[in-house]
Amino acid sequence: MGMTMTQKILAAHAGLDSVEAGQLIEADLDLVLGNDVTTPVAIHEMDKFNKKEVFDKNKIALVMDHFTPNKDIKSAEHCKCVREFSAENQIKNFFDVGSMGIEHALLPEQGLIVAGETCIGADSHTCTYGALGAFSTGVGSTDMAAGMVTGKAWFKVPSAIKFNIVGEKAPWVSGKDVILHIIGMIGVDGALYKSMEFVGDGIKNLTMDDRFTIANMAIEAGAKNGIFPVDELTEAYMKEHSTKAYKKYEADADAVYDEEYTIDLSTLRPTVAFPHLPENTKTIDEVGDIKIDQVVIGSCTNGRISDMRIAADIIKGRQVAQGVRVIVIPGTQEVYLQCIEEGLMTIFVKAGAVVSTPTCGPCLGGHMGVMAAGEKAVSTTNRNFVGRMGHVDSEVYLASPAVAAASAITGKISSPEELGL
Amino acid sequence: MGMTMTQKILAAHAGLDSVEAGQLIEADLDLVLGNDVTTPVAIHEMDKFNKKEVFDKNKIALVMDHFTPNKDIKSAEHCKCVREFSAENQIKNFFDVGSMGIEHALLPEQGLIVAGETCIGADSHTCTYGALGAFSTGVGSTDMAAGMVTGKAWFKVPSAIKFNIVGEKAPWVSGKDVILHIIGMIGVDGALYKSMEFVGDGIKNLTMDDRFTIANMAIEAGAKNGIFPVDELTEAYMKEHSTKAYKKYEADADAVYDEEYTIDLSTLRPTVAFPHLPENTKTIDEVGDIKIDQVVIGSCTNGRISDMRIAADIIKGRQVAQGVRVIVIPGTQEVYLQCIEEGLMTIFVKAGAVVSTPTCGPCLGGHMGVMAAGEKAVSTTNRNFVGRMGHVDSEVYLASPAVAAASAITGKISSPEELGL
Repeated sequence: MGMTMTQKILAAHAGLDSVEAGQLIEADLDLVLGNDVTTPVAIHEMDKFNKKEVFDKNKIALVMDHFTPNKDIKSAEHCKCVREFSAENQIKNFFDVGSMGIEHALLPEQGLIVAGETCIGADSHTCTYGALGAFSTGVGSTDMAAGMVTGKAWFKVPSAIKFNIVGEKAPWVSGKDVILHIIGMIGVDGALYKSMEFVGDGIKNLTMDDRFTIANMAIEAGAKNGIFPVDELTEAYMKEHSTKAYKKYEADADAVYDEEYTIDLSTLRPTVAFPHLPENTKTIDEVGDIKIDQVVIGSCTNGRISDMRIAADIIKGRQVAQGVRVIVIPGTQEVYLQCIEEGLMTIFVKAGAVVSTPTCGPCLGGHMGVMAAGEKAVSTTNRNFVGRMGHVDSEVYLASPAVAAASAITGKISSPEELGL
Repeated sequence: MGMTMTQKILAAHAGLDSVEAGQLIEADLDLVLGNDVTTPVAIHEMDKFNKKEVFDKNKIALVMDHFTPNKDIKSAEHCKCVREFSAENQIKNFFDVGSMGIEHALLPEQGLIVAGETCIGADSHTCTYGALGAFSTGVGSTDMAAGMVTGKAWFKVPSAIKFNIVGEKAPWVSGKDVILHIIGMIGVDGALYKSMEFVGDGIKNLTMDDRFTIANMAIEAGAKNGIFPVDELTEAYMKEHSTKAYKKYEADADAVYDEEYTIDLSTLRPTVAFPHLPENTKTIDEVGDIKIDQVVIGSCTNGRISDMRIAADIIKGRQVAQGVRVIVIPGTQEVYLQCIEEGLMTIFVKAGAVVSTPTCGPCLGGHMGVMAAGEKAVSTTNRNFVGRMGHVDSEVYLASPAVAAASAITGKISSPEELGL
């Protein structure tokens, strides 16, 4: 029986010729990731078992991104804990205030993960790196601790859903609209513990940043991972960002899929997920008149340079609507710098938006834009659960950078088309 | 008996020919200021007395700067309260996320306060505007409420201390060093309920930003206010920033002062206030070897463009010391924009510092750089009380932007001279 992309990577890392869905395996890990929220818990787990050393100081990435620069004493203590652990263990890839970015924007940019590799991260959006043709998945802090000590993790080999991507993107459609459309279609448990494997002729019409956004939100359909084949674009990206050797995997022709869907990019419309689930999607045409209080443009989902460019193109020469707070958060210091160099920051600030230093911040109601009762945000982030961005009576509408930027100008959920774009 | 500068302004606003120290007066207010921490309390006070209307919607400034963009639900609710109040009362100068800055950097920049005016603000550093030759002082939220309703406030007319400024600034000496030197000399209660009146030939050698910094920290010596005479520089500043009419006051030749000091700028050295009081000053030569964890460059004390320029000049082409978090916070959106245009942001980010959107943030341990136990910061802010920037076992060393920037590079409290500058 043929294997999926994901199964081939897992088999190779388990030292097996083949694996099949449902099989329990132990796989070698190429990268173990943690952040300022989850790593202190993992370190505490290691302490409990009196494990002081990590399996490989070069294969661990610890990124201080959620509550940084520290929002309070508790977050300061968490970062201090990880800082000391990193120093003791000479962790090569410890990213603190100043070298940091949002983990899932940062790791590919820094070339720490490439095609064919395995990665676990104590953060649910670790599935992002599937965009590069890697197997990566979110785990709990305990699994992260075991991974840091042993360099291995056990997995139940996932079955898969195939998404056949065809066509070219319709106007103002981006990776965010593709994944919101899919989650709207299959639901937040539509891919529960499965691989979402994206294939097809239309993939070439998705930028790398589109793919990162799509893979990033695989978890929002409950998937174990999302994964893309490696094409010329992926190879160019990896060559630009990494010196690591990569390996391309393709699904066998006779690989078994639980389900298959075809997504025609040319038929999609800008899509918005209404409160309080990413599956509550409507196209921009069905949205109606929803006044907003806040716009967030950033996060591990949409904080990359192309996201910033799209937003800036729309905002340029316009003014943020009266009464709307617009918070722009570049994903990494590199993106921040590029935004300055391309004049995007100037556009944002002149329009009346504020620009934050890279942080997860408001996405999880952490800081840098937490909402009060009754407030509504359009956000390029990945979750709109009850209370996700603050008060339980606040609402988050998930959308693309294009829709978020247009909404910043109109003060209600809008397509750029409403601005004549 | 002659009057001081301050007494003349108060007399004019009380409709009296003259006043003397100790006299109780009621003065008209030209501006009433509040922020996101204090304004909700003032609004609540107004509610208690069923007062719904303000005396003049054009003479109130409400600035959301302390915990913004909102760090948590509580701060979001506070801002929402002020936002709604501002909308109801059509407050012209309501500064929210996007139009905001740190209040005491923002108000002079926006031309809302000029020479000869009176201002109360529910924030202790309201004394900043004395740099423009205005009488301005910090009050509690209840007084702010009364001021918003009546446009008046009562004062006990302060006596004064005269600081005769002479000479030219020694290398790397700035307004911050002048005021730290003075506070070190007279103590944190050295000017209790008095005016600190700065006069003399040396004033012309102080930039407007130097003067803002000096007046800003008058409260750190316990002063009711700090005030400078209006010279050509002040007039040029006001003409650039404001359309308001201003009035120049000078102390009478026979004005009485409780004490007089002469400060020779040419003999000063870069000065650092050690934990946990602004009066614990040492010159940079006496500091010794103090390793630091964090550097903060910003605040209402030192977040102006010249502060940013000094810091960037020192940091340019250098790298932040390993293990030191360096947080740069421009005082206003205008300063932020200017920093981008002058290439300062690029310098900071390339060096490994992070740049925050304007906020008071870490100065008061609010957010954006709160410290853990045992950590030490060099900060251009104004207070270094126990726990001011986070944990009660953290330490804040107050210094100028020049010393902060040099320390960011060396990783210990340093003068730019240590870098060969």
